[in-house]
Amino acid sequence: MKNLNLISKEDIIQAAKRISPYIHKTPVLKCDLLNRLVGGEILFKCENFQKAGAFKSRGATNAVFSLSSQQIMNGVCTHSSGNHAAALSRAARLRNCEAFIVMPKNSSKVKIEAVKQYGGSITFCEPTLQAREETLREVISKTGAMEIHPYNDIRIIAGQATATMELIDQAGPFDIIMAPVGGGGLLSGTALASHYFGNGAQVIAGEPSGADDAYKSFYSGEFVPSVNPKTIADGLLTSLGSVTFPIIQNHVSKIITVSEDSIIKAMQLIWERMKIIIEPSSAVPFAAILDNRGIFARKKTGIIISGGNVDLTKLPWK
Amino acid sequence: MKNLNLISKEDIIQAAKRISPYIHKTPVLKCDLLNRLVGGEILFKCENFQKAGAFKSRGATNAVFSLSSQQIMNGVCTHSSGNHAAALSRAARLRNCEAFIVMPKNSSKVKIEAVKQYGGSITFCEPTLQAREETLREVISKTGAMEIHPYNDIRIIAGQATATMELIDQAGPFDIIMAPVGGGGLLSGTALASHYFGNGAQVIAGEPSGADDAYKSFYSGEFVPSVNPKTIADGLLTSLGSVTFPIIQNHVSKIITVSEDSIIKAMQLIWERMKIIIEPSSAVPFAAILDNRGIFARKKTGIIISGGNVDLTKLPWK
Repeated sequence: MKNLNLISKEDIIQAAKRISPYIHKTPVLKCDLLNRLVGGEILFKCENFQKAGAFKSRGATNAVFSLSSQQIMNGVCTHSSGNHAAALSRAARLRNCEAFIVMPKNSSKVKIEAVKQYGGSITFCEPTLQAREETLREVISKTGAMEIHPYNDIRIIAGQATATMELIDQAGPFDIIMAPVGGGGLLSGTALASHYFGNGAQVIAGEPSGADDAYKSFYSGEFVPSVNPKTIADGLLTSLGSVTFPIIQNHVSKIITVSEDSIIKAMQLIWERMKIIIEPSSAVPFAAILDNRGIFARKKTGIIISGGNVDLTKLPWK
Repeated sequence: MKNLNLISKEDIIQAAKRISPYIHKTPVLKCDLLNRLVGGEILFKCENFQKAGAFKSRGATNAVFSLSSQQIMNGVCTHSSGNHAAALSRAARLRNCEAFIVMPKNSSKVKIEAVKQYGGSITFCEPTLQAREETLREVISKTGAMEIHPYNDIRIIAGQATATMELIDQAGPFDIIMAPVGGGGLLSGTALASHYFGNGAQVIAGEPSGADDAYKSFYSGEFVPSVNPKTIADGLLTSLGSVTFPIIQNHVSKIITVSEDSIIKAMQLIWERMKIIIEPSSAVPFAAILDNRGIFARKKTGIIISGGNVDLTKLPWK
């Protein structure tokens, strides 16, 4: 239980206070038809309606506003192809400092545009982890900017935890709380918030079979990196980190893997029935529910819908 | 002002009470980016999240629950290719009576499925107004079912009016309230609710240029039928009715027409930025705002987002 001390109950409460002027209190939605389908009650915490379209705004804003004026003097930086890049750029602009973003050159147009819109300075690199890390080191040595890692950072995790704290406050208590897992920033935050505020709710994660490194790490007890992951859930490609893995080991009950077909089916069902736009990564927990109804029947389950940034011209069911 | 007496303030309040156990109190959403784009404040009343995916559930439920047991003994009926068909089927099932729905045989699969799902009995016909009316007469003579017209009916209009009453209660007062116009059921209800509860808010309608019969009727003062309408906004193809037209003449300030390109652009912007699924008809008022920003700048405008029933495999921006 060593990691409990890393992020305390008070850290999450403070994070929520710190970010509250800059983020949305997102709504919790439900759908009778989906409830009937599962035979239980499912509540969706809609972080797809969050600023910059994802829960990432919580962690990035908490991290940037936790820094001293001295620390942000030279700006902040990260490498990211996705929602963290936009969220960090936005948080930096709110704090009136610069954001240097290293992005793989094959990043989606929508994501690049979002970073530009929030005023981030982009440096493109080859789409490999090595190139991303090297380019970021060059950016740091040139600018002196402070790196904000997308998930392996206690300020980020405390920020992401506020989504679950808010969900429990709005619609709790729950039997089960779910989140998708990629690098584990959201899942760690979800697990800690559930531990502190959840009255014994179990935390269950969903992960794509095509990127099942967290599943393998969790059940083997040893860190397994993500190698050549293949999934439509583009927010879940990364490996667990040294901070997130132990929190997940201590506070998560189960990780369920799902196929690409299940993800697409769950995503389409939510679009059609709930009339909300969610990205593929966000559909992973609901896909796990549909594939394992026995676990969720007659239970009250909350799901963190992680984001809604989708290229509308490239939908998977075309 | 003769039509004021047709539907009183009390009728709308009673309708809201009557339907409240059966419909959602839908959320009101806003988007900072869209507000900046317009230079004013826009609030979206999300009837796309309504039961059966559209405001039509309000009117249909009010109409069905206004009838006596005697009147519903033989069921209810209508001809409709769209959301009214599903909403009426749902309301009938809630009241434990039958719904006979005449649908043109080229109706979309999604809409046909929705009617079936709510237990409506479908009779298909040729896709002409004449065939629809004749087939409905046959159904009535066979079944004795009570016809519930989709819009030219005071119980329907009083039901639709509750959306605006609720919007004003949730987020009012407004300078302007907007709705799209097809047959005028929603617009009449919006105009009456604004008149009774709106503290002087102006009502402005949006209409597709390719189906501009309401625009022509409104500005000529004489009823102009909808002939060969062509628009992606498939909820707005019908003509005004004898009940809706006078209410619109008395209580609407302006009707603005918009091109197909404007509708598609407005729809895509709302999907991308607000992460909500709205049908083309629902994008028409916001398209009118984007084309006429001078009218809406520095104003507070409420829009009734009419519905979210879209075939996700046939999106207009593909």
